[in-house]
Amino acid sequence: MRVALLSGGGGGARFARGLQSVLAPGELTVIGNVGDDLEILGLRVSPDLDSLLYTLAGLIDVERGWGRADETWNALESVATWGGAAWFRLGDRDLGLHLVRTEALRDGVPLSEVTAKLARGVGLATSLVPATDDQVRTHLATPAGTFPFQEWFVARHHEDDVDGVEYRGAEHASAAPAAAAAIASADAIVFAPSNPYLSIGPIVAVAELHAAIATRSARCVAVSPLVGGDAVTGPLGRMLTRMAGGTTPGHVAGCYEGLIDALVVDEADAPAEARVEMVATKTLMTDSESERRLAEAVLEAACG
Amino acid sequence: MRVALLSGGGGGARFARGLQSVLAPGELTVIGNVGDDLEILGLRVSPDLDSLLYTLAGLIDVERGWGRADETWNALESVATWGGAAWFRLGDRDLGLHLVRTEALRDGVPLSEVTAKLARGVGLATSLVPATDDQVRTHLATPAGTFPFQEWFVARHHEDDVDGVEYRGAEHASAAPAAAAAIASADAIVFAPSNPYLSIGPIVAVAELHAAIATRSARCVAVSPLVGGDAVTGPLGRMLTRMAGGTTPGHVAGCYEGLIDALVVDEADAPAEARVEMVATKTLMTDSESERRLAEAVLEAACG
Repeated sequence: MRVALLSGGGGGARFARGLQSVLAPGELTVIGNVGDDLEILGLRVSPDLDSLLYTLAGLIDVERGWGRADETWNALESVATWGGAAWFRLGDRDLGLHLVRTEALRDGVPLSEVTAKLARGVGLATSLVPATDDQVRTHLATPAGTFPFQEWFVARHHEDDVDGVEYRGAEHASAAPAAAAAIASADAIVFAPSNPYLSIGPIVAVAELHAAIATRSARCVAVSPLVGGDAVTGPLGRMLTRMAGGTTPGHVAGCYEGLIDALVVDEADAPAEARVEMVATKTLMTDSESERRLAEAVLEAACG
Repeated sequence: MRVALLSGGGGGARFARGLQSVLAPGELTVIGNVGDDLEILGLRVSPDLDSLLYTLAGLIDVERGWGRADETWNALESVATWGGAAWFRLGDRDLGLHLVRTEALRDGVPLSEVTAKLARGVGLATSLVPATDDQVRTHLATPAGTFPFQEWFVARHHEDDVDGVEYRGAEHASAAPAAAAAIASADAIVFAPSNPYLSIGPIVAVAELHAAIATRSARCVAVSPLVGGDAVTGPLGRMLTRMAGGTTPGHVAGCYEGLIDALVVDEADAPAEARVEMVATKTLMTDSESERRLAEAVLEAACG
């Protein structure tokens, strides 16, 4: 069974780990969001791809939820001493990855090839692929102005209300070949319980991927990131309220209009109204067992 | 009294610290070798400038003799994991400097401006300036082929005999404005007890600097890096034997033909024959007191 998962970092990465644990090696392809990517200190950083890679490879800092376990912060402290930009938290071990990736990209290797090599390097059987090798950058329109994602999220602590989301570059972006191929050959397409605007949105903003999903023959199932009418973490609740008018499963499904056959929602949000089939289960992932249970429920929903 | 010191890293940096300790703040300008510079992991690294900066600012690892004190190596360990080049030892704190410098250079800031800003950033009263803002790279001709400096020195452990030294790019390099100005306005010019071929050579290979020293009105004094007919550390002894025919003060003075008025030599190497004035003193620097004593002896020799 071939599964193509669209995912951001954080909760999406944990869900990916759950799917990886219930599928056979090689059955899962994770298509990661690159809308959060940034250039900082001359380095190209792909936070969602890295959260996916670190989580799937068991390298993630479980407490913090991002970055590497056993991390140190001496390079960044030094950067601050020398007057460099230290607002984006890059740990020493994390930096090693950014250095290797940035050098490869500068040598002209596409991001998807670099990512595949990194994943192979840590022995991952799961395929990890960026939505696109081109530049797509999420920008947030807020009452205080329009900001690139990381400036809004990290530097401004995602305090500004969001009136609109732009995926700059998406209109000219081609799908990464392996991402398009994974969707075309998938027996099931899954949207992780990630933020529809910030994580899944920038992926399906790539026209080729949108079209491939819209015209799918396989079923496509999304997992709602809501539990009890709010996101488990992050700014999604406020964003949905302001931009979609509410935080019910129906509002989440509305973000995926024409792309999904079913929405897996938390029992706390059921029953609910939506224009797609709804499957209620426990969606909160608190340990590997709950990750696995959710993955199994989602695969069942995906098989119709 | 304005002193312009030409120096490599290591022993030259310790000598610079001695001069800094006996001169008034602002009297010393150190012109650093950039022939050892390299690009590694997409970073621009200037090992001699960094040894000077770290030594003068009290940040150097005293035991190791290079890099930062209290250093960690997690980024480089991670680089190795991800398949990147890990042969050149870059510590985490050290990396912070390379990131900041590389980003500035890529933004078009000349190396001398970046270096001045870094030095100001740690409150250095001494001016630190690269010989040139252009690229000059030392290459070593050996029986096994010609190698860039760091490949010969680090990767091949400077085991190959050296038949010749090339300073690639020097013929088209302009002096860094502050380096030329420091020599022009100096009351004394000093060559640190660095390797004549590898440290001082690439500096005076810049035609403007060579001419400014050759036509000096101030006295120019070199400190011999030999103690008892061999270099305290490094490959100089073998290089002098093979390329100059011996390891006496006269052989060192021969490397500086037309550029120096006097050579300060260690008592263990005196008396000796050379075509310049010789001043014998204890040149071995083992602590701050011996650094200071050597600096005082050299300044005395420089004042004629």
